[in-house]
Amino acid sequence: MAESTNMRLRLPLLCIILEVILIILFGALVEYNDDTHAKMWNANKSHSATRDDYENEFYYRYPSFQDVHVMIFVGFGFLMTFLQRYGFSSVGFNFLIAAFSLQWATLMQGFVHGMHHGKIHVGVTSMINADFCTGSVLISFGAVLGKTSPVQLLVMAIFEVTLFAVNEFILLSMLGANDAGGSMTIHTFGAYFGLMVTRVLYRPNLDKSKHRNSSVYHSDLFAMIGTIYLWMFWPSFNSAITNYGDPQHRTALNTYYSLAACTLATFAFSALVNPEGKLDMVHIQNAALAGGVAVGTAGEMMLTPFGSMIVGFLAGTISVLGYKYLTPVLESKLKIQDTCGIHNLHGMPGVLGAVVGAVTSALASPGVYGHGLQRVFADAETGKWNPQSRGGFQAISLAVTLGMALFGGLVTGFILKLPIYGAPPDTHCFEDGLYWEELVPPHLAFTF
Amino acid sequence: MAESTNMRLRLPLLCIILEVILIILFGALVEYNDDTHAKMWNANKSHSATRDDYENEFYYRYPSFQDVHVMIFVGFGFLMTFLQRYGFSSVGFNFLIAAFSLQWATLMQGFVHGMHHGKIHVGVTSMINADFCTGSVLISFGAVLGKTSPVQLLVMAIFEVTLFAVNEFILLSMLGANDAGGSMTIHTFGAYFGLMVTRVLYRPNLDKSKHRNSSVYHSDLFAMIGTIYLWMFWPSFNSAITNYGDPQHRTALNTYYSLAACTLATFAFSALVNPEGKLDMVHIQNAALAGGVAVGTAGEMMLTPFGSMIVGFLAGTISVLGYKYLTPVLESKLKIQDTCGIHNLHGMPGVLGAVVGAVTSALASPGVYGHGLQRVFADAETGKWNPQSRGGFQAISLAVTLGMALFGGLVTGFILKLPIYGAPPDTHCFEDGLYWEELVPPHLAFTF
Amino acid sequence: MAESTNMRLRLPLLCIILEVILIILFGALVEYNDDTHAKMWNANKSHSATRDDYENEFYYRYPSFQDVHVMIFVGFGFLMTFLQRYGFSSVGFNFLIAAFSLQWATLMQGFVHGMHHGKIHVGVTSMINADFCTGSVLISFGAVLGKTSPVQLLVMAIFEVTLFAVNEFILLSMLGANDAGGSMTIHTFGAYFGLMVTRVLYRPNLDKSKHRNSSVYHSDLFAMIGTIYLWMFWPSFNSAITNYGDPQHRTALNTYYSLAACTLATFAFSALVNPEGKLDMVHIQNAALAGGVAVGTAGEMMLTPFGSMIVGFLAGTISVLGYKYLTPVLESKLKIQDTCGIHNLHGMPGVLGAVVGAVTSALASPGVYGHGLQRVFADAETGKWNPQSRGGFQAISLAVTLGMALFGGLVTGFILKLPIYGAPPDTHCFEDGLYWEELVPPHLAFTF
Repeated sequence: MAESTNMRLRLPLLCIILEVILIILFGALVEYNDDTHAKMWNANKSHSATRDDYENEFYYRYPSFQDVHVMIFVGFGFLMTFLQRYGFSSVGFNFLIAAFSLQWATLMQGFVHGMHHGKIHVGVTSMINADFCTGSVLISFGAVLGKTSPVQLLVMAIFEVTLFAVNEFILLSMLGANDAGGSMTIHTFGAYFGLMVTRVLYRPNLDKSKHRNSSVYHSDLFAMIGTIYLWMFWPSFNSAITNYGDPQHRTALNTYYSLAACTLATFAFSALVNPEGKLDMVHIQNAALAGGVAVGTAGEMMLTPFGSMIVGFLAGTISVLGYKYLTPVLESKLKIQDTCGIHNLHGMPGVLGAVVGAVTSALASPGVYGHGLQRVFADAETGKWNPQSRGGFQAISLAVTLGMALFGGLVTGFILKLPIYGAPPDTHCFEDGLYWEELVPPHLAFTF
Repeated sequence: MAESTNMRLRLPLLCIILEVILIILFGALVEYNDDTHAKMWNANKSHSATRDDYENEFYYRYPSFQDVHVMIFVGFGFLMTFLQRYGFSSVGFNFLIAAFSLQWATLMQGFVHGMHHGKIHVGVTSMINADFCTGSVLISFGAVLGKTSPVQLLVMAIFEVTLFAVNEFILLSMLGANDAGGSMTIHTFGAYFGLMVTRVLYRPNLDKSKHRNSSVYHSDLFAMIGTIYLWMFWPSFNSAITNYGDPQHRTALNTYYSLAACTLATFAFSALVNPEGKLDMVHIQNAALAGGVAVGTAGEMMLTPFGSMIVGFLAGTISVLGYKYLTPVLESKLKIQDTCGIHNLHGMPGVLGAVVGAVTSALASPGVYGHGLQRVFADAETGKWNPQSRGGFQAISLAVTLGMALFGGLVTGFILKLPIYGAPPDTHCFEDGLYWEELVPPHLAFTF
Repeated sequence: MAESTNMRLRLPLLCIILEVILIILFGALVEYNDDTHAKMWNANKSHSATRDDYENEFYYRYPSFQDVHVMIFVGFGFLMTFLQRYGFSSVGFNFLIAAFSLQWATLMQGFVHGMHHGKIHVGVTSMINADFCTGSVLISFGAVLGKTSPVQLLVMAIFEVTLFAVNEFILLSMLGANDAGGSMTIHTFGAYFGLMVTRVLYRPNLDKSKHRNSSVYHSDLFAMIGTIYLWMFWPSFNSAITNYGDPQHRTALNTYYSLAACTLATFAFSALVNPEGKLDMVHIQNAALAGGVAVGTAGEMMLTPFGSMIVGFLAGTISVLGYKYLTPVLESKLKIQDTCGIHNLHGMPGVLGAVVGAVTSALASPGVYGHGLQRVFADAETGKWNPQSRGGFQAISLAVTLGMALFGGLVTGFILKLPIYGAPPDTHCFEDGLYWEELVPPHLAFTF
């Protein structure tokens, strides 16, 4: 076993080859955009007195970027530390695949979203978009958590990032969809991609590692660090790339209310579904976040705090019920082993968010949005504005996303099934000792 | 026992009823303000060329809001994880009552602070104010930590938020007091309200749970996460709703210096009061924060770094001495069982902050503030400006706050005493197992 | 032993004396700057319509300041909690010496960088600079971690802060060097200062505490909190005091890419140098950060993402190799006991950063930077602009820094060697119990 999971050549080779390719491609293709380029920023300034430093996109987006960055590295990383013997891998592999994905995503998103004279322009907006794409990979990571080697995860990231960029391009550029917070592009895509991967990688004998597939007291507290950071900064996530001014402000506000309502629903249904009325940490850690997912599309629209709270409450409810009743069925009937329950946190709430976005789009009108309409719906300016068809395109976007995710996950799953990546044996899933140097004997750590 | 503390119906019912009421009231009463409304923000823009997106209040306040948000959910949440068997409840109930309180506070503060044509207007400032009010409830939570059911805590929040809004209205609108960082409205109010509640809920036999009312090595490290986040972001807390420009900038600076000086006092007196000269984690976790509380009123004034440091040093000193000498007396003589020692962290430093605010107001003059005077003292514009009477009103505000807090805590305490909320028995205080599904047998977790 | 390490008088006396001196000096010398002063900020506004509140430096720098603040208190503090029995001291002493250093640094940096009519002016930029100087002290703390009393650490901070300010003045003001992210002033200086101190304090019998000089499962997870926060916020660190607009934006971007590439190098070489291909937590926790250190000088220049990634990849590589092969040699041959391996995280990457900065400066040209040249290189305006000599001055700056650090560390080391500070005996290094009140018997905590 030690042989088959040895990372000594596999992991270094893959990391170094990938990074060298990234560096070469960045050297050939990536340039500073006008707001990060010494010559361009100042050239424009000298032409016009109206462009001053406070207009640099840095000041509108960088605080949101840092919040998103915290969600990606601390939020996702620590959320997955709930497993008793998999904390190093949760935080560590999250770190590795995120660091790779954000570079690869910069290239892939740059390719498909349009280059400038053959060059990809980068700045704070590309940083946020790369982090968003990374988030999608980390969602999929949640489904296969504990059952994959770091090499497999990097290979998964290569394919998922690429497909993410294609799907995002179809939605945002071809279908003109709205999805600032990524209910579809990030959550639905990442969830169904990951669920399909874990389906293909189904392990009939995973029971052999069952005793490690659970939490202990401290590991649950570490996971709460992840939960709380995701919860707090979700308003920044959903608003990070909306238009300046009222859309950014409104999106943060809507997300704040959705999450608050979702939290009350989560506590309510967590106690309700337990025979003794006891709360389940799994629900609190995960379902309380579903409200952020579910306003990822409509958050920038005039959803109102009232609407946001209803959506959040629904999202929390279906998420808890999913953890309690659906996850066991998915495993026993559909052979989908979903370690973190991403179907409940990202899958169903993502679909709910897409539907809410389609309905809210279809109800949009100049009477409600005034001159702000085209700041939310880019094509409102063209005169061909038709909210019902907008709603229709939103619905089509959801279908495209589901198709891309399931198909991409299927193909990627089969690629990951090749016996060359050093995947853990069934008896040693959810176990840090396989890939991490041990400092204390396993029977002494975390098992007291 | 299991029966009497069963939350299966109580908690879900209360959560769902409260959230439904909140949603209905939000639907009837809450509207986007001009900075979050698509029509309003852009309508104003077309009228005047001077209003550009960078003037949206979002860019002045949102980074501070996120810092405050971290303090409420991570800061307060983890600060209370110091108890060895109460980490889930500390972070979890903090999460629940904060998510409820911020919604309820939006309504209550909206009601009393003036509606716009029958509507409550929301935006980033209302989000900050709601978080502030929530902070006050969490302070009170610290006094009753480990001895209350989540249902009791929600009921407490209903009453405390309401009274907070009334007291805040009297201070800020009727008495014209300054209290941007809430030495009075948040800290003094929350502390004395909570102390009165815990007095009414006095448990003569709490000794039966004594062995769980202490920390272990790891739980103290988790608590330090809370401490450090509160400490770092306190400059954002005190400056979050001051006027734009110099007041916001100055408040952050004053708070930074006050906290630094407070930390040195805390370490000094913690070692001094111990016979072996050893530091006490309780002091470091709590007293080092008193410097932020104590400049909550005067921080926006021309207190100077020099003045801020003196205040911070005093606050740290009285806080450590309070933990060492006063808390045991409060329990044995006054029957006030104050789990987190909120009297030392929020009570006394809050009163100190109110006094410092009154004195600093009374010393204000156009000579020192120039044209900036009316940006700190709103009524300085009226010509009837009289710093001595300003100082007097500040002192009256403290008295009003103390009265409201003690009276409110008394009434709320008696309401919470009804035997219908599933409160823990004396033998099972400070124990997660009562309300949380257990993953490992209690004798194996956290008691190694 | 208990006697010799007793802090009851030593620590309180030193803290109180230091804070009283600080307060007196602040009272005599420190004033609000124009952006924090009620009179000055508003006086200027009335003169000119162009100066509006959004031009207050607060809005350009405060979000970055808070990120830096998190790095100093959470980042450094928790990074050092990896030791199994030294978590209280790691976070606690980090807290103490940082709170002292930022006050002392405000004075020292104010003295040498030029006073305004005999006064030191403070605002958000002085807060960032003080935090930067504090970072340097905390780097040195990493070398002596576990082997010093809090009194020794405060004495070290007094000297190191002073010398830091002098060295910074020589570099930035006399030599006109660029070093916005402090590859030289912060990292190289802090590292070689600390290495020299620990050399002078060499303990031949440190083996007696060997069993405590290692991590356990949970302590490594706590340390990852520190790592991840440092990693995420490093773009803010390097960009915090660059010029507004494109330099701030570009620096953040370059640092982001450097760190991402560094992380892949770290995972690659960590697995490669282990016979079983297993990853080492020490490498992940530390070497992955070297990419931030290594673009601390050149980050604001037109380094390009391509260049940043090469630098980051190199930094991660040399850092891992340093931990594996150099640290043991430093200890056995040079008698340098470097607890945290600061030579690998700050020393070598700092020197690399200085070299990269010199080369990038020497390659600067108006063709690349356009009108933005003088926003990066202050003396480009003078007409005497000569990139080669700029590069030369950068190289000289590195030499000066190394000299100052080694000399300062030597002198400070001998001062710290006096047997009056209550340093721990060889048998009780890396042990919280010496300076912290114990809540549970040592054999029960963290050793399960």
